[in-house]
Amino acid sequence: MIKVGIVGGTGYTGVELLRLLAAHPQARVMAVTSRKEAGMKVAELFPSLRGHVDVAFSTPDEARLSECDVVFFATPNGIAMQEAQALLDAGVRVIDLAADFRIRDVAEWEKWYGMAHAAPALVGEAVYGLPEVNREAIRSARLIANPGCYPTAVQLGFLPLIEAGIVEPDHLVADCKSGVSGAGRKAEVHALLPEAADSFKAYGVAGHRHLPEIRQGLARMAGSPVGLTFVPHLTPMIRGIHATLYARLKVEADLQALYEARYAGERFVDVLPAGSHPETRSVRGANTCRIAVHRPQGGDTVVVLSVIDNLVKGAAGQAVQNMNLMFGLAEEAGLGGVPLMP
Amino acid sequence: MIKVGIVGGTGYTGVELLRLLAAHPQARVMAVTSRKEAGMKVAELFPSLRGHVDVAFSTPDEARLSECDVVFFATPNGIAMQEAQALLDAGVRVIDLAADFRIRDVAEWEKWYGMAHAAPALVGEAVYGLPEVNREAIRSARLIANPGCYPTAVQLGFLPLIEAGIVEPDHLVADCKSGVSGAGRKAEVHALLPEAADSFKAYGVAGHRHLPEIRQGLARMAGSPVGLTFVPHLTPMIRGIHATLYARLKVEADLQALYEARYAGERFVDVLPAGSHPETRSVRGANTCRIAVHRPQGGDTVVVLSVIDNLVKGAAGQAVQNMNLMFGLAEEAGLGGVPLMP
Amino acid sequence: MIKVGIVGGTGYTGVELLRLLAAHPQARVMAVTSRKEAGMKVAELFPSLRGHVDVAFSTPDEARLSECDVVFFATPNGIAMQEAQALLDAGVRVIDLAADFRIRDVAEWEKWYGMAHAAPALVGEAVYGLPEVNREAIRSARLIANPGCYPTAVQLGFLPLIEAGIVEPDHLVADCKSGVSGAGRKAEVHALLPEAADSFKAYGVAGHRHLPEIRQGLARMAGSPVGLTFVPHLTPMIRGIHATLYARLKVEADLQALYEARYAGERFVDVLPAGSHPETRSVRGANTCRIAVHRPQGGDTVVVLSVIDNLVKGAAGQAVQNMNLMFGLAEEAGLGGVPLMP
Amino acid sequence: MIKVGIVGGTGYTGVELLRLLAAHPQARVMAVTSRKEAGMKVAELFPSLRGHVDVAFSTPDEARLSECDVVFFATPNGIAMQEAQALLDAGVRVIDLAADFRIRDVAEWEKWYGMAHAAPALVGEAVYGLPEVNREAIRSARLIANPGCYPTAVQLGFLPLIEAGIVEPDHLVADCKSGVSGAGRKAEVHALLPEAADSFKAYGVAGHRHLPEIRQGLARMAGSPVGLTFVPHLTPMIRGIHATLYARLKVEADLQALYEARYAGERFVDVLPAGSHPETRSVRGANTCRIAVHRPQGGDTVVVLSVIDNLVKGAAGQAVQNMNLMFGLAEEAGLGGVPLMP
Repeated sequence: MIKVGIVGGTGYTGVELLRLLAAHPQARVMAVTSRKEAGMKVAELFPSLRGHVDVAFSTPDEARLSECDVVFFATPNGIAMQEAQALLDAGVRVIDLAADFRIRDVAEWEKWYGMAHAAPALVGEAVYGLPEVNREAIRSARLIANPGCYPTAVQLGFLPLIEAGIVEPDHLVADCKSGVSGAGRKAEVHALLPEAADSFKAYGVAGHRHLPEIRQGLARMAGSPVGLTFVPHLTPMIRGIHATLYARLKVEADLQALYEARYAGERFVDVLPAGSHPETRSVRGANTCRIAVHRPQGGDTVVVLSVIDNLVKGAAGQAVQNMNLMFGLAEEAGLGGVPLMP
Repeated sequence: MIKVGIVGGTGYTGVELLRLLAAHPQARVMAVTSRKEAGMKVAELFPSLRGHVDVAFSTPDEARLSECDVVFFATPNGIAMQEAQALLDAGVRVIDLAADFRIRDVAEWEKWYGMAHAAPALVGEAVYGLPEVNREAIRSARLIANPGCYPTAVQLGFLPLIEAGIVEPDHLVADCKSGVSGAGRKAEVHALLPEAADSFKAYGVAGHRHLPEIRQGLARMAGSPVGLTFVPHLTPMIRGIHATLYARLKVEADLQALYEARYAGERFVDVLPAGSHPETRSVRGANTCRIAVHRPQGGDTVVVLSVIDNLVKGAAGQAVQNMNLMFGLAEEAGLGGVPLMP
Repeated sequence: MIKVGIVGGTGYTGVELLRLLAAHPQARVMAVTSRKEAGMKVAELFPSLRGHVDVAFSTPDEARLSECDVVFFATPNGIAMQEAQALLDAGVRVIDLAADFRIRDVAEWEKWYGMAHAAPALVGEAVYGLPEVNREAIRSARLIANPGCYPTAVQLGFLPLIEAGIVEPDHLVADCKSGVSGAGRKAEVHALLPEAADSFKAYGVAGHRHLPEIRQGLARMAGSPVGLTFVPHLTPMIRGIHATLYARLKVEADLQALYEARYAGERFVDVLPAGSHPETRSVRGANTCRIAVHRPQGGDTVVVLSVIDNLVKGAAGQAVQNMNLMFGLAEEAGLGGVPLMP
Repeated sequence: MIKVGIVGGTGYTGVELLRLLAAHPQARVMAVTSRKEAGMKVAELFPSLRGHVDVAFSTPDEARLSECDVVFFATPNGIAMQEAQALLDAGVRVIDLAADFRIRDVAEWEKWYGMAHAAPALVGEAVYGLPEVNREAIRSARLIANPGCYPTAVQLGFLPLIEAGIVEPDHLVADCKSGVSGAGRKAEVHALLPEAADSFKAYGVAGHRHLPEIRQGLARMAGSPVGLTFVPHLTPMIRGIHATLYARLKVEADLQALYEARYAGERFVDVLPAGSHPETRSVRGANTCRIAVHRPQGGDTVVVLSVIDNLVKGAAGQAVQNMNLMFGLAEEAGLGGVPLMP
């Protein structure tokens, strides 16, 4: 059994990790830290876990994280970068679900995240945890930068087009819609039900922190910089991301065949039949990305529809997938749950 | 492996059975019937099942249900009563998720359901599938009347009070709130999102079909007739039932201890600590009933809060629990999923 | 034109007052105070008011409230009691939408609200602003205690039964469901969309601050104390209260006729035809209470269904109705909006 | 008072017309037709209208529409084209809220709408009822083709850019999100709350009927054909459209000034301050289109955010606006309602 520690277990990615790991046959959560809730049973704060999770929150000191095999950081940005080195030194692998190690250009990271980076030396070592792109590197990594939710949906959606080099890379558009859980379990007025329900809006059009992460990922696939307009929207639902992607085709291609071939061996990417429209609920609670590719009216604009559950393939599920790879387990261990529908 | 047939797989209880059975280690779905969708892959109609369920809908004739070990009827009322006898004769066990065999008084059933009963002789044989009350009878049953969703939440909530004989049985009140999936996957205007979202209403105050079922169950527990006012409400959510129950105490009692003792050995009934308020989302997707018992201001009115997922403990999950009992499997086989929260 | 001041314009009752008063033909908002947002245009914080409301938030000092004809307090509890006397002394009438003056027994108020009362001398003068009960007193009042949202729905629902003395007054039950805006525009985790959407729960079963207010009102109607069990529930919708009321009939009566007669002249109480089930959306945005009365299966339990918009008849609309009465305007001035459906 | 008839009053555009006309000072609804509900009071089907609308549904024969001054068709596509000529011959003006007269190329219309056109001769006479483009023609029109909901949001969003000729017209993108009421009040499974709530999906990517309408409108503004990719999405909310528009700038321009100038005199188009993100709820129930224009990171991609209430500015409100223009009334008569927020 892999001994797991979770730093920051009171947010949505933390509780989702607990849900997934409770069903994992080869992992056991030894400690969940929360300074604020230390001493309280996790299942008292989250009654959905009653009967499934018996651990209590502990302070970071009590948690003895250095005795774990792997520690997940389900914390705000800026925490993992302060604590990762000590854990790595103790032989513990680290998976950061926040953004601390996602951007290789430290100056760029500091600009978007508004703080000095505490561990720039680790940025180069960290492996970007998108298994469909970096599987082999993940297997041998000590430190994983788990991708953001929007970046996962957008990169998996654009990947076959970019790798094949068949679209113009300078004017990509990613129009993305996220459920409100993407904003985290923080007391903020704009995420109150009376503010966010029965309404729809864009936000961060001038610039969102996931933009440099997506651009970096797409550029790596393309082998050269890309131009991207990224517009996130707040959607009146709990979970789910729907990315609607637009690119201009510069070479003729059988798009459906391209996508099916690229993702043929991928357990967690599902290319839908031609003409499909994936719903976010079709992946609710599951570690799956479902994709459909369209070419409306046979023109030169490709439209890709890519959906994930932001808390699973967009966060905790992908983190578990990365853990499985790092420890030589079956990649799908603990990730076989069927989406909840309706 | 138990060979399972499902009659009527296009409704919400049908697709929920498929979700649960896909994760069941000892059952295999051999056939799912639908005259309308015959020939279509189940996962084409319900993409959430892609990668988990490979079977296609078949006509009842093609389905060879008589070769199954058990057949679930996830059909409208009035179907199972026409087909159950032939299956039983072929040695197949039958679990009816509709109401055909729930009411022992056939005349009463015919009054509430507005049709003649096609198999009155089977009504006496059918076992009411509420394991917390009828576990032993279920184990040896050939034919199960799976309880309704409201009746499950209400009966489990009142059970300890009624069995202990400590409340006045003539003026019980069950104020119940259900998600819209309780109305089924039928094209009806009142269940459209623009009609049912962001609004709340009672319905069926003059009389709802679950009233006689609840009254029958409570009377059996009490050993004599009970008086019940039952008011169902349509709640703007997908899944979940919240029953708020009111009874007048006639004897002093430690209510918390009473509930904990009654449900001590029950895997699927969770008595919350004193002072709790269960949320329906705490059982979303799970076969659990969570209950809290209150006595406001120390008066003589007991208030019980009882929540279930109407599609799981209120339908498909309880049906699988009954199947497990009938076939000598672990009662929780296939039912270990952690609720999805948020 | 009546000169209106609003203290505390950043919450839901404040913005709803602004919406209603923007359409009022005989009132003009002169000042809206907010220490935090002083200097900002109201329509910048609430873009729905762009083109309708031109005023900016001001500090209490700048607001010159003593020059207004009437000041509404749309503040947390405990503010109006500190400021009302000075305004009254300046000849300004005061309508408090919070709870400071609702409970005539000051000790009782202090117990439920957890603070010392700053103006006990004013409690006796304040008129409880439920026009259907206190219309004449409201006309001549200087200080109005505007009723709470639950108390409005519950009192209007029980009123004809209690006044007529035909139900047993010692075991009334009010099972109430409220939209999340009832919790106010405060940054709190439990009201986040991912917490409150697609779920349902009771809260405050042990005791809610509206309980003494409702009991006081019903007792006044009955002429003697009443026994009441009041259970509020949080409903996944923005606006709306649905009160489901239970009482035991002790005298035969034509309930439909009783309700229609009692509310015959009331512009804002609508008794629905026998057999109806009011939806909260049927009063969305309107100052109307719609009521249906039932007697299931002809038994001795009366079930009353009473719906309001918690922000209108349950708060700002009723406050405007009170203002209209106090200033001799048509009672429905500014309150003629048609509910928004769907 | 203008005498108004409504053909087809049981759908969402019909009931919204009734809501708006109930508050219109110079119009009176004389007849509302519905074969199915003939004889029933409108307010019985739609209780939100109790106390505001007293008319009953009538059959088309009883309705004596030829005695009206104007008749609105709130019907499915294909009805108005059969009945308009007779009304026009009787001197009645006609406003069709369906699509019968929106596309000037009859063959194109027949291709997208799948039926033969019954009145091709009227297509040329019909005026496209987008007042911000066609105000003068509307004033003197006998027959109005009221624009579709998506086309209104998209055209008003693109208008200043296209008229100014500063964007490349061949690769426009309109990524649009609509509330479920846009699908109408029809009993269809995909619009049930359990299907459409808490989920998000695109639909009609291969081709949607509003595509030719938008292309026609933009081409008219541009003076030459345009290339457009239009992707509609179903959003889990009742009302509202959010159009996110993408275009490539080919000439430098002060976009904010351009938009403010173009819409300076427009009562129902509100250009938000630079950097804004309009929410659909900010126009809930109102005839307003709110627009923000962005140029992310100063690049050459313009992003326009345009929101309307699909039932008001996208249907019934715009129809009333057109009626006001046709009859020489104040353009905003009956359309002054403040949006409902929250």
